[in-house]
Amino acid sequence: MHKLVLIRHGESTWNFENRFTGWTDVDLTPTGQVQARQAGRALRAEGYEFDLTCTSVLKRAIRTLHMALEEMDRLWLPSVKHWRLNERHYGALQGLNKAETARKFGDQQVLTWRRSYDTPPPALDPDDPRCERSDPRYARLQAGEVPLTECLKDTVERVLPFWNDTMAPAIRAGQRLLVVAHGNSIRALVKYLDGISDADIVGLNIPNGIPLVYELDAELRPIRHEYLGDAYAAERAAAAVADQARA
Amino acid sequence: MHKLVLIRHGESTWNFENRFTGWTDVDLTPTGQVQARQAGRALRAEGYEFDLTCTSVLKRAIRTLHMALEEMDRLWLPSVKHWRLNERHYGALQGLNKAETARKFGDQQVLTWRRSYDTPPPALDPDDPRCERSDPRYARLQAGEVPLTECLKDTVERVLPFWNDTMAPAIRAGQRLLVVAHGNSIRALVKYLDGISDADIVGLNIPNGIPLVYELDAELRPIRHEYLGDAYAAERAAAAVADQARA
Repeated sequence: MHKLVLIRHGESTWNFENRFTGWTDVDLTPTGQVQARQAGRALRAEGYEFDLTCTSVLKRAIRTLHMALEEMDRLWLPSVKHWRLNERHYGALQGLNKAETARKFGDQQVLTWRRSYDTPPPALDPDDPRCERSDPRYARLQAGEVPLTECLKDTVERVLPFWNDTMAPAIRAGQRLLVVAHGNSIRALVKYLDGISDADIVGLNIPNGIPLVYELDAELRPIRHEYLGDAYAAERAAAAVADQARA
Repeated sequence: MHKLVLIRHGESTWNFENRFTGWTDVDLTPTGQVQARQAGRALRAEGYEFDLTCTSVLKRAIRTLHMALEEMDRLWLPSVKHWRLNERHYGALQGLNKAETARKFGDQQVLTWRRSYDTPPPALDPDDPRCERSDPRYARLQAGEVPLTECLKDTVERVLPFWNDTMAPAIRAGQRLLVVAHGNSIRALVKYLDGISDADIVGLNIPNGIPLVYELDAELRPIRHEYLGDAYAAERAAAAVADQARA
């Protein structure tokens, strides 16, 4: 039996400002830093130990990992930072306020962009200053690997190679993994692990900074999963995520 | 031509308390955190870019790296944390005050332990609670790889495989390396790179938190090196290191 722990980064400045973030590299708020440290303390209190940590190349996830590891006195753990764990790319919506966007385009359109499995938001223009294609952290990627927009289906397709090439082999080799990622890269993993349908994934939300513990069998099929700590708090936090884009 | 940047971690709590530290995993002081951020800001101001970062498995080096990378907005850079970059192991002196130890054993004996190339301090007993052999971060090492004491010669011998296996191949492949390590693991690298004699390495000290930039030719032979920023401040800081263990 294997354990895998997934954590969505703590609250970011654009979570707080209710803006679409995607691949924009915004930092944690003070609340987000507290959430990150609480996640580390919860794991430490429960005696969790890890062999490998994985995170995205976005600072809200990296700093959440670092702060959690500081609380666990495990800063020395190896860490893999990979763009495939990045948040879903939000296209031309990146930077826009979620409620204003809902007023402009209607709740239903925004809900479709946020939660439809296969309808991406409008794409970024490659010449838009928000486009990440000139960012040095993506300089070694193939043309087209840096998205201009993504629906969740696209996110699943680019997260799964990281599962197959890095996470699954490490878990099979007996390594205990701590993964700090984003709402939609974690939804992508959860959809795959639990075999959630394209329709049902729409209703699944991941709260900030609460460790989600999966128990997997020898074939890496989930036996059960639970949020660490206060399950009711996790439920309320997930519900708050679902409410963010109502006008 | 290649560039390689070496930084000794910022001031640690035991630097401040003037205690022998070695492999003991003490944290940075507030001054050490300022030094770490200043190092990052200096590198950023000079336009340095990196492809790979390397550090030890001790938090004073890891946190120095993280803080410097935060200032450079380069937290996403890959990082290798390796025990071979740890500080020299200080044996049974770990935790003792340097000045008290000098009063007890005499300035000359302590100077020998601190600066002789091949005389190690008294060894830790493997049953001593200070011994690191039960620390989980070293669980995968071979028996005997976790030292009970080290002279600088021992440190050179265990740092060089990291140079040969990781640093040198990466630099030859064109990667720009930032290495955050410790006074003696950096002295070990500098002794090897510059071909400093066993006698002359005694007088070489590395200040906290000031980037030391090496220019290397295609064969990785040093062309020149310099401390980034205020050379006079670096010289004074190095002199202060030399003065620490006078009774």
